[in-house]
Amino acid sequence: MNEEFLNRLRAAVGAANVLTDGDLSAWEQDWRKRTRGKALAVVRPGSTEEVAAVVRACAESGTPLVPQGGNTGLVVGGVPDESGREIVLSLTRLNKVRGIDPANLTMTVDAGCVLQNLQQAAEQAGLLFPLSLAAEGSCTIGGNLATNAGGTQVLRYGNTRELCLGLEVVTAQGEVWSGLSGLRKDNTGYDLRDLFIGSEGTLGVITGATMKLYPLPAATLTAWAAVPSLEAAVKLLGLAQKHLGAGLTGFEVMGQFALALVDKHYPQLRVPLFREFPYCVLLENSDTESEEHARGAFERLLETALEDGCVADAVVAENIAQAHGLWHIRESIPLAQAEEGLNIKHDISLPVSRIPTYCAETDALLQKEIPGVRLVNFGHLGDGNLHYNVQAPEGGDMKAFLREHEERVNTLVYDQVKRFDGSISAEHGIGGLKVGKLPEYKSKVAIGMMQALKKALDPKDILNPGRVVPR
Amino acid sequence: MNEEFLNRLRAAVGAANVLTDGDLSAWEQDWRKRTRGKALAVVRPGSTEEVAAVVRACAESGTPLVPQGGNTGLVVGGVPDESGREIVLSLTRLNKVRGIDPANLTMTVDAGCVLQNLQQAAEQAGLLFPLSLAAEGSCTIGGNLATNAGGTQVLRYGNTRELCLGLEVVTAQGEVWSGLSGLRKDNTGYDLRDLFIGSEGTLGVITGATMKLYPLPAATLTAWAAVPSLEAAVKLLGLAQKHLGAGLTGFEVMGQFALALVDKHYPQLRVPLFREFPYCVLLENSDTESEEHARGAFERLLETALEDGCVADAVVAENIAQAHGLWHIRESIPLAQAEEGLNIKHDISLPVSRIPTYCAETDALLQKEIPGVRLVNFGHLGDGNLHYNVQAPEGGDMKAFLREHEERVNTLVYDQVKRFDGSISAEHGIGGLKVGKLPEYKSKVAIGMMQALKKALDPKDILNPGRVVPR
Repeated sequence: MNEEFLNRLRAAVGAANVLTDGDLSAWEQDWRKRTRGKALAVVRPGSTEEVAAVVRACAESGTPLVPQGGNTGLVVGGVPDESGREIVLSLTRLNKVRGIDPANLTMTVDAGCVLQNLQQAAEQAGLLFPLSLAAEGSCTIGGNLATNAGGTQVLRYGNTRELCLGLEVVTAQGEVWSGLSGLRKDNTGYDLRDLFIGSEGTLGVITGATMKLYPLPAATLTAWAAVPSLEAAVKLLGLAQKHLGAGLTGFEVMGQFALALVDKHYPQLRVPLFREFPYCVLLENSDTESEEHARGAFERLLETALEDGCVADAVVAENIAQAHGLWHIRESIPLAQAEEGLNIKHDISLPVSRIPTYCAETDALLQKEIPGVRLVNFGHLGDGNLHYNVQAPEGGDMKAFLREHEERVNTLVYDQVKRFDGSISAEHGIGGLKVGKLPEYKSKVAIGMMQALKKALDPKDILNPGRVVPR
Repeated sequence: MNEEFLNRLRAAVGAANVLTDGDLSAWEQDWRKRTRGKALAVVRPGSTEEVAAVVRACAESGTPLVPQGGNTGLVVGGVPDESGREIVLSLTRLNKVRGIDPANLTMTVDAGCVLQNLQQAAEQAGLLFPLSLAAEGSCTIGGNLATNAGGTQVLRYGNTRELCLGLEVVTAQGEVWSGLSGLRKDNTGYDLRDLFIGSEGTLGVITGATMKLYPLPAATLTAWAAVPSLEAAVKLLGLAQKHLGAGLTGFEVMGQFALALVDKHYPQLRVPLFREFPYCVLLENSDTESEEHARGAFERLLETALEDGCVADAVVAENIAQAHGLWHIRESIPLAQAEEGLNIKHDISLPVSRIPTYCAETDALLQKEIPGVRLVNFGHLGDGNLHYNVQAPEGGDMKAFLREHEERVNTLVYDQVKRFDGSISAEHGIGGLKVGKLPEYKSKVAIGMMQALKKALDPKDILNPGRVVPR
């Protein structure tokens, strides 16, 4: 039976693109090495039609499939389970830029294109594709769309969802929906595009997309501000939005302990202004006019903020190297915390206005629960998104800490998120990792609708089964 | 049976809010007076719970219902049919602003709030709610959401969809989904919000929403430019996007005949620069800094465009009165064409880059089909959205023109839209008016998915049945 099915796959995509032997860990293991599954096969179609043929073979034989892009997901949503029954449908051979339309400010691409390649393709056309995140060198746009990835420029340009105008999708029946619209307005029925975006491969397989492009800014400046409190950081955000408008393309907050870890493990990065202040903020200003204009706007903003007291001290990068240096500090926080040892990671979002109280209360509850616990708190404050990570007390046994506390810490953090009307997954998704948590933190009505939609579009439950939608 | 059902409604919302007698034309007739239906009753609940009770009564008795806001829709999607079986569920008593959160830049409101009241509530809080369209004095935000309304600032702020962060919805089963998130990032499952937005009341009844707000700009300037061709207008758009970035909040194109009609019927409006040029463009620049800065940016843009040849002549409004005057000309086009007589209206969108060729080809095809036909072509060029309206030849019998040509003209215009990868409904929706056209202009796969989704969420087909989704 399996052999007959595999032969059908081989006929569809070529025998060389149906992998069943050898080391398949690149496809079977998730990026954070939380899980190692076992695939019936790794199938690598080379065209949309081949994807459709594979899905039809799966539909007819009832074989479950897991769509996979760059396999950089953080919630175990793109690797097979341990049953050996699931195939991995790898999209990475679909890697062409189909076309760029500068007058329409759009780019139509295959799902398997690596994000960084798309940034470069846009730049070569004199335009900006603003999606940017840590995994950009290996993640694919199909994966970005399937998980509605966020990143560092959401404040200005939105999540991946907001950057997408149209999709090409292979349905659970193996039909092709050609929805590659380059339209900014289209009210001819239900919003199928946004239903597939963020569904993590459980409703259809994204094979292509039309994405928005933007003019390249004339200048981009970066500033670093020390703030006396999270309340002050929120106030600074409001001032920056007022002064810079859409020029504000980045607003990252970093707690003192997060920066202390960078300072400890990467002293050569020379973290500025963090010793005396509980939080620092990294601001980015993208200007359509000139560097001079950007600098003037930044200076007026920071003067106002200093007078107002919501900024204690600040520096503006003098040149691109300094700007990269400041961003590099921000981006080194995850690595520095890994150097420090295991920790309990969260990717939460909250209404921006409620973040200061959330953190004050939750910090205190965690200290009470685990005296000496250390918080690596940082994230995209402009989007209300915090990576609120919990590190063991200094010198403690980290493995024991995780074993003893992970479940309780998650419950405490997520219960607080619920109290403050937040989300337990801001930008990473649900996958297999958090699907068990969903019934506690999402309404029964919402989950009921999700189940109904899943059943409507994938009645045989062959697309990434068990992920995202609680059973 | 009917009486028993009506008594249940009276018990749910109060007898005074179940209208069955007298003149119900305000609810039964659509705004453009294309259709006059007959309602079993007009039901006016005063709270979300009352909406849920009404929907439960409908679900249990199998009574179809038509949700209705300000009844300003243009595609016969919010009025009952002639059967006398459908109730109108009017949301206008749900008209409270539930709260404004300035630090989070959000506003949570009842679905029945009139759009203009929300603009004013935001402004009183020192903030901007940027949704703006002709019917804003009477349309409701629930209707805007149900139809994903567009308007004049989509270029910068997006359609209603892009302005919404969360919804409260009564499902077809009469349950309440409380999805009033003030979150800019939330990846905890399927995007239910965007599925309801634009579904025109066929999947659920929107009762509340959390909408995005923005800082008020420091200055808003308006310019009027005559352009030698549509190609030049597209080029000017690209230059304006490059120079002004997100400052570009309006880019409206108006054909010479459209402006000639305004000049003919409202000579006091003094339309500038239209006699020698085939198209004029209205540009709006919203600046976070100052009027002086806005004026400088506009002047640099227009100088570049004049040198480049894509602008032939231009004026910048000197003050707010002049700016309003220019906008008033643009907004008077629909009235001027009504003064001129009946015409065949279209609300199409295309990739911006393809608009010049689309218009050249389609203009010629129409002239060939109906010699002397006149085109009232205007719209939101920045969004690729044209109101490409077809007026009878001068002096002809207009009723006869419509009778003889409407169907053929629609087919010609829409077939061309299909050839150019456009949409037959950019911002007005499908409703009952265009649902019959959908199978010709939307893919079978897409319609199949729409039908499956409708069946999944509204299995008894009680919510606005027959609208949007072809049967």
